[in-house]
Amino acid sequence: MEVGFLGLGIMGKAMAMNLLRHGFKVTVWNRTLSKCEELVQFGASVGETPAAVVKKCKYTIAMLSDPSAALAVVFNKDGVLEQISEGKGYIDMSTVDADTSIKINEAIVQKGGVFLEAPVSGSKKPAEDGQLVILAAGDKTLYEEAIPAFDVMGKKSFFLGQVGNGAKMKLVVNMIMGSMMNAFSEGLVLADRSGLSQQILLDVLDLGAIANPMFKMKGPAMIQSNYSPAFPLKHQQKDMRLALALGDENAVSMPVAAAANEAFKTARSLDLGDLDFSAVLEAVKVSKNKA
Amino acid sequence: MEVGFLGLGIMGKAMAMNLLRHGFKVTVWNRTLSKCEELVQFGASVGETPAAVVKKCKYTIAMLSDPSAALAVVFNKDGVLEQISEGKGYIDMSTVDADTSIKINEAIVQKGGVFLEAPVSGSKKPAEDGQLVILAAGDKTLYEEAIPAFDVMGKKSFFLGQVGNGAKMKLVVNMIMGSMMNAFSEGLVLADRSGLSQQILLDVLDLGAIANPMFKMKGPAMIQSNYSPAFPLKHQQKDMRLALALGDENAVSMPVAAAANEAFKTARSLDLGDLDFSAVLEAVKVSKNKA
Amino acid sequence: MEVGFLGLGIMGKAMAMNLLRHGFKVTVWNRTLSKCEELVQFGASVGETPAAVVKKCKYTIAMLSDPSAALAVVFNKDGVLEQISEGKGYIDMSTVDADTSIKINEAIVQKGGVFLEAPVSGSKKPAEDGQLVILAAGDKTLYEEAIPAFDVMGKKSFFLGQVGNGAKMKLVVNMIMGSMMNAFSEGLVLADRSGLSQQILLDVLDLGAIANPMFKMKGPAMIQSNYSPAFPLKHQQKDMRLALALGDENAVSMPVAAAANEAFKTARSLDLGDLDFSAVLEAVKVSKNKA
Amino acid sequence: MEVGFLGLGIMGKAMAMNLLRHGFKVTVWNRTLSKCEELVQFGASVGETPAAVVKKCKYTIAMLSDPSAALAVVFNKDGVLEQISEGKGYIDMSTVDADTSIKINEAIVQKGGVFLEAPVSGSKKPAEDGQLVILAAGDKTLYEEAIPAFDVMGKKSFFLGQVGNGAKMKLVVNMIMGSMMNAFSEGLVLADRSGLSQQILLDVLDLGAIANPMFKMKGPAMIQSNYSPAFPLKHQQKDMRLALALGDENAVSMPVAAAANEAFKTARSLDLGDLDFSAVLEAVKVSKNKA
Repeated sequence: MEVGFLGLGIMGKAMAMNLLRHGFKVTVWNRTLSKCEELVQFGASVGETPAAVVKKCKYTIAMLSDPSAALAVVFNKDGVLEQISEGKGYIDMSTVDADTSIKINEAIVQKGGVFLEAPVSGSKKPAEDGQLVILAAGDKTLYEEAIPAFDVMGKKSFFLGQVGNGAKMKLVVNMIMGSMMNAFSEGLVLADRSGLSQQILLDVLDLGAIANPMFKMKGPAMIQSNYSPAFPLKHQQKDMRLALALGDENAVSMPVAAAANEAFKTARSLDLGDLDFSAVLEAVKVSKNKA
Repeated sequence: MEVGFLGLGIMGKAMAMNLLRHGFKVTVWNRTLSKCEELVQFGASVGETPAAVVKKCKYTIAMLSDPSAALAVVFNKDGVLEQISEGKGYIDMSTVDADTSIKINEAIVQKGGVFLEAPVSGSKKPAEDGQLVILAAGDKTLYEEAIPAFDVMGKKSFFLGQVGNGAKMKLVVNMIMGSMMNAFSEGLVLADRSGLSQQILLDVLDLGAIANPMFKMKGPAMIQSNYSPAFPLKHQQKDMRLALALGDENAVSMPVAAAANEAFKTARSLDLGDLDFSAVLEAVKVSKNKA
Repeated sequence: MEVGFLGLGIMGKAMAMNLLRHGFKVTVWNRTLSKCEELVQFGASVGETPAAVVKKCKYTIAMLSDPSAALAVVFNKDGVLEQISEGKGYIDMSTVDADTSIKINEAIVQKGGVFLEAPVSGSKKPAEDGQLVILAAGDKTLYEEAIPAFDVMGKKSFFLGQVGNGAKMKLVVNMIMGSMMNAFSEGLVLADRSGLSQQILLDVLDLGAIANPMFKMKGPAMIQSNYSPAFPLKHQQKDMRLALALGDENAVSMPVAAAANEAFKTARSLDLGDLDFSAVLEAVKVSKNKA
Repeated sequence: MEVGFLGLGIMGKAMAMNLLRHGFKVTVWNRTLSKCEELVQFGASVGETPAAVVKKCKYTIAMLSDPSAALAVVFNKDGVLEQISEGKGYIDMSTVDADTSIKINEAIVQKGGVFLEAPVSGSKKPAEDGQLVILAAGDKTLYEEAIPAFDVMGKKSFFLGQVGNGAKMKLVVNMIMGSMMNAFSEGLVLADRSGLSQQILLDVLDLGAIANPMFKMKGPAMIQSNYSPAFPLKHQQKDMRLALALGDENAVSMPVAAAANEAFKTARSLDLGDLDFSAVLEAVKVSKNKA
């Protein structure tokens, strides 16, 4: 199976490598073309532009850094739109909002192509290990055709219906995660101020019904006030805000998420936006002695 | 090692059985003495009263249903206090509030005995399998002497310092759990009203960084509106209230727990207090069409 | 002083009448021109189009129903932009968002004109009585020139600085009002369920430090579950949302407003969006017996 | 009419003076008896003990500083209980919790006396001016007999039913007040950080539907960060906590009050508990630059 691959950042490179390793013929493109070289050593071809990649390949996958990059690769000169046409599929695995995906979908479909948004859950390590979780939405047939590629890049893929649903599912998951991080932070501070050991709290949590990888991975760093950013707090807060907006649209009242969102905003006002989202712990800690 | 064991409810019976199975000599007492018979078949002796058990044994463990039962067994006629004395230890593994433990501790210590509160995390199945998590606090020497018994009843025990800390640690854990259940419920409703599959949300959650046994066990029942009570909502709400009161005492602001507590109260006003605490989902769902 | 006046709805008609009554020469325009007749009887001239009014008058005031109407009157064919020019001022007293005002301002200024946004606080009765509160922002000189007109339409006007600040000030005020309405509703329900008379609560409130016209006017209707719309709940909720968004932009955490907003969303989910915003009381009341 | 009066603090002295001024014969007692002298100059008699006052007078009013003082005056040696009997009435106007009132009521009634709790709304100035608001509950006949005295001390009295309801009504009012103070504080911070004048916000609020004496009196001091204590924040937070507990008892969900309570707790953790409750503004302000 031959696929194009646009975007060789940390995630994209790891994903393209997995495709190569499993026998896919891959034509890569990156804004800084020199980044393609490493993949060429493993058998990749290089396309000069997004349009060139799409012209050559029946299926093209994109993994770009943000909505504006995702839009640029499609709509700019030498972009995907110039060569997409009937019989060709475009799969955007970048994390973008629903509106961006819908806009790209409309343009692709108007040219006769088919589109799938397919954002992933998981970061560098799962990308390298082919252990991503893929949240696909859009053209069902294209989804089915893409399964061999998804199987190589991820441990599991889901088809969620119409374009936009991939983005929405990520928001729902991240909203739950953000509220949980707040609950965890409140528990850590309550333990400490009540004379209990935070380390033992971590141990107890890890043995019980709410044990989860996030508490286990981030907890020990948090009790050291170490928040080196895996997922920046300002991005988590943005996702809370967007999830609350989605709830607003659908008249869903979410008081716990709303309270969590305000705590993340307090953290931003304390200049913690660029640290890991676990730094919301500092917003809970606020007090005369420890602020 | 010889131990007394007071209280043969669902939990107590399973715990005493594990002691017998591992070679402990156990003298049991229960308010309804007939409940002792089954254990006698496995080698237990019977004490006629709590006082009789304490008289006979160097160490006595109690596992009672609530604070009033825990107090009665100690302070009533023929109770623990009548025979506790220097050289004897009393270990209360019931789930009670810090004040109850402190009151029992003071009385025991005044008589020359030593005391340990040791509430557990885990219910029937872990009790039977010797997989409880034990949160001990009080006399450190008694804790160390009790470890052989704890090793048989639980998979892990912790020593938390002064009496009351066991109860407090349980509150902190349950508070985090209650907020998480709200976050989960808000996510389930948001998914549904946004046109996403709740089942796929469960699958996605289970593959990610916040996967945990509670979501996995309760999620499928929740999306069927099935809330048969494992941990009744009214008890969860009581623990939220007590955790917030503990925060109040220590000037810890916990807006997410406070919002979760109000949602549990809404659930109570909808007459869901006797269902499982996951029924807070119904409070999130409230709407003209679905209430 | 000669002024143009665009928009003769309930508010606009009352405001234009006050100008006429106090000796201003007023040229009016309305989308349905027949509405101008009544004012002609009191001495008004009629302009055929917004452009015609602006051509004739040095100052033109607009009072339109919503942002799209405000934009249409400026940007459409025969609109304000076609005749605005150096030496002419345009004063938009409609309630619109900051972005709409900023867009109108830029267009006016590019043509050489000067602009003032001047939304009002107060509804029909204050408009008729010349008792509005006017929140002006934009060109300071135009503000000073407009004071004679403001003095006739309002009891007080404020100059708030750059364009957009009028809209923002309204949001801040409405946010406080929305949170207060929630506090009031919670108090009413708490009184009732605790066995206290709601009527006496109203009486006590009215005698104390937090007595205010809103509690006094709406309270008696609320305890009768009467919510005939003065300010529709869905608009109040929209203002809460926009105020929270303004807070988000400036990293201001507002947990009380956030909780109030979620309660308004619950009210919307109960299909109360078109009733008065005091109907949030029904969201607080939610319970099995009384919902 | 002859009445006894126990407690001549700031409030009690002013209230007793009003009784004297309007022709009541008053027998006073105070823990520090020297405080009685000033009143003697205006015609008061002095009782040596609470019991002596009750013995002499058909009706005895008390105005004490807190629940423990209120209990001491009744239950201690030479206390009210020693002389209360059929035909005598005791009216406690101190601010105490419902449980304290209920306990006093039971003891009085057992001796054949009748009881009224009658806490007041209003502080020093209204006490001096006879402008208190009186929240009476308990014996209806005693209430009616006490009206001449209430008319002299207050501008309005209410009869609220069974003992405890006076305390509860105060909690409801103070809860609304606490939430309003938070809403106000959030608005002040939002205005400031959005580039709006806080002073103009105060002016606009004072002209609108939510204008109230509290905003008017405290606002100007708040924008100067001046919080000299009229009603200490820690007492306001205690009242929020008790109101939430009352809601808990009656399954009333109050998310706005809960959020406000958490903000008051943040203020306490910032060591602001002894300042005026308007100092919650500092908790809203918290940020790296301005904390």
